[in-house]
Amino acid sequence: MSLLQNITRPTLLIDQSKAENNIRLMQEKARANNMIFRPHFKTHQSVKVGRWFREMGVSACTVSSLGMAAYFAKDGWQDITVAFPFNILEIELVKTLASKIHLNLVVENLEAIEVLESALAHKVGVFVKYDTGYHRTGLQWHDGNLNKLIQRLESSGTLHFKGFLIHAGHSYHQSSKKDIKNVYLQAIAETAKLKEKYSHLKGIIYSYGDTPSCSIVEKITEFQELRAGNFVFYDLVQQHLGACKEEDIAIAMACPVVAKHPERNEIVIYGGSVHFSKDSMQDIEGKTIFGKVVPLLNNGWGKSYRDCYIKSLSQEHGILKVTDAVMEHVKIGDLLGFLPVHSCLTADKMGKYLCLNGEEMEMFDYKSL
Amino acid sequence: MSLLQNITRPTLLIDQSKAENNIRLMQEKARANNMIFRPHFKTHQSVKVGRWFREMGVSACTVSSLGMAAYFAKDGWQDITVAFPFNILEIELVKTLASKIHLNLVVENLEAIEVLESALAHKVGVFVKYDTGYHRTGLQWHDGNLNKLIQRLESSGTLHFKGFLIHAGHSYHQSSKKDIKNVYLQAIAETAKLKEKYSHLKGIIYSYGDTPSCSIVEKITEFQELRAGNFVFYDLVQQHLGACKEEDIAIAMACPVVAKHPERNEIVIYGGSVHFSKDSMQDIEGKTIFGKVVPLLNNGWGKSYRDCYIKSLSQEHGILKVTDAVMEHVKIGDLLGFLPVHSCLTADKMGKYLCLNGEEMEMFDYKSL
Repeated sequence: MSLLQNITRPTLLIDQSKAENNIRLMQEKARANNMIFRPHFKTHQSVKVGRWFREMGVSACTVSSLGMAAYFAKDGWQDITVAFPFNILEIELVKTLASKIHLNLVVENLEAIEVLESALAHKVGVFVKYDTGYHRTGLQWHDGNLNKLIQRLESSGTLHFKGFLIHAGHSYHQSSKKDIKNVYLQAIAETAKLKEKYSHLKGIIYSYGDTPSCSIVEKITEFQELRAGNFVFYDLVQQHLGACKEEDIAIAMACPVVAKHPERNEIVIYGGSVHFSKDSMQDIEGKTIFGKVVPLLNNGWGKSYRDCYIKSLSQEHGILKVTDAVMEHVKIGDLLGFLPVHSCLTADKMGKYLCLNGEEMEMFDYKSL
Repeated sequence: MSLLQNITRPTLLIDQSKAENNIRLMQEKARANNMIFRPHFKTHQSVKVGRWFREMGVSACTVSSLGMAAYFAKDGWQDITVAFPFNILEIELVKTLASKIHLNLVVENLEAIEVLESALAHKVGVFVKYDTGYHRTGLQWHDGNLNKLIQRLESSGTLHFKGFLIHAGHSYHQSSKKDIKNVYLQAIAETAKLKEKYSHLKGIIYSYGDTPSCSIVEKITEFQELRAGNFVFYDLVQQHLGACKEEDIAIAMACPVVAKHPERNEIVIYGGSVHFSKDSMQDIEGKTIFGKVVPLLNNGWGKSYRDCYIKSLSQEHGILKVTDAVMEHVKIGDLLGFLPVHSCLTADKMGKYLCLNGEEMEMFDYKSL
């Protein structure tokens, strides 16, 4: 039990073999569908996890900020897409990165294109963000600016128009596999309009990305690039959506038990919103939960305890609802494991991982910028 | 505009004069009520902000973890209470701290007392956590263990029983000043029972803490120590509760505008849940909001724009709902300011501050442990 013996505070455990299995399956799906595999690294944000991908033959990645692009570029990633509307205030960082790697940016307005056009000496790839129904960012089919942007990019010397980037993030708001497939079909229908209109543009990439669709849909046609990211760890939200099984979840928090309240079947852990993040979800019974409870083992963690969950989080406290059996069994000073509701935010909060072999792995640190 | 000219990414601004004013008012309240002022530092988590308190004569503080205690002890704080149920797995850190400073811990079970008793060479102060109605941690009046704990502490050589620590955190769940006062009155009523029963114990401190009560209640009687913390910055939740005015809020995020969607009155900023945290609140109209929009000025920020707010946050994106006037006025690449829903979590997420004079201030970093 040497791994657990050294843990005294909230600690984020990572199971490399589960993560590698998740990577392998998604990589196989991309291959089977003849797609470029450009996984999103915003979930793990770690050069070490990035190397697991690289060792499996992955050479392109997606990130969510220019700072994160610089972090992975430093570890040898030569082909990076920043899947976020280009922030013109960061033009200096783009200039530096474009001189070193194959950088792809995402735009959705002429202002961004003009700044890039006038400032860049080195070529960058540019995707236009296309909105197939999520309505967070991107241009919709009927947007008059769509044509203007593409004409401007087509006539540019330094900007290489790569294609359209689609994120059907509303797949997260669905409640069944069928609904998620419908989100995917909607994306295909909206993309078909683009394909017809821009059929004269050769080699255009239609890039697609959300983990629920990419996990659930078996035959992905119509898109040439797969950008999903969360699948590397998955989490309770993905399990709830049917995108993974509980045993696929590759990270778990380990937290000390500091108080017990048998009179209300509650256990208090050291582990709060500064560790887990404040994301919650409705479980199948409609209860709001912030995580599920698992036993910690020598070599990882086990299956979640029935009817046990994190009921609320304050800054450093987590309050668990537990069964009588768990209440009796768990002692003050024990470590319990927790599956996160949203692995991206929990990983970002914790800022580092502890592998099951005892190795610590660092992450990108926004504060370092 | 040199302050704003250097900002290219989400940045947490701090207005020292507003924070100092908030500190002064709470310090005066503690003095007027003849209370020990032991402000909670979990909100700001910064040695520099701690020094603002110290320069105003504050010499005792509260923190939410032993790691944070070590961080402030290193900057010269000699009298620190860790207002969190003592985590027995961290006994080694307690031993180190107890040899250097006056350390006060909080307990609510015999297991914690036994570990301290058997391991410590240096004296520590111990508070028993008392639950006056929040039901997160602590013992309630009718709990049979209350007496056992106090007897055990009274007979200890190394543990100095200091008194009872109360956190009426359910004041945050109220909807009017009157309801918040009732939470305070409930705490007084529950505390009166303790006072009667333990009247033979001399010099006992009844320590009280939440920012809503401490801001709203003018005459705080019955408690000898004031531990509030959020008041140093306040935030939209506190304003909503009536604990502060908007102009008292001492931190604001500055974020770049990256996209505009006039067709749905939405603006997209670079600034998401990894910057703001995922905490939300209901505004007076019942809408869920993640922050309010303010103009950024040479010397800070102005009054919030009417009917403009952060409608949703994903990892790096913030989506604003804005009026036609703001939509027209704001350009791609502009910086907008945002008042946070919950300043503690936003500060924790950002990990550093930018003062209005351009100075950067670091914070406690959990990852450094």
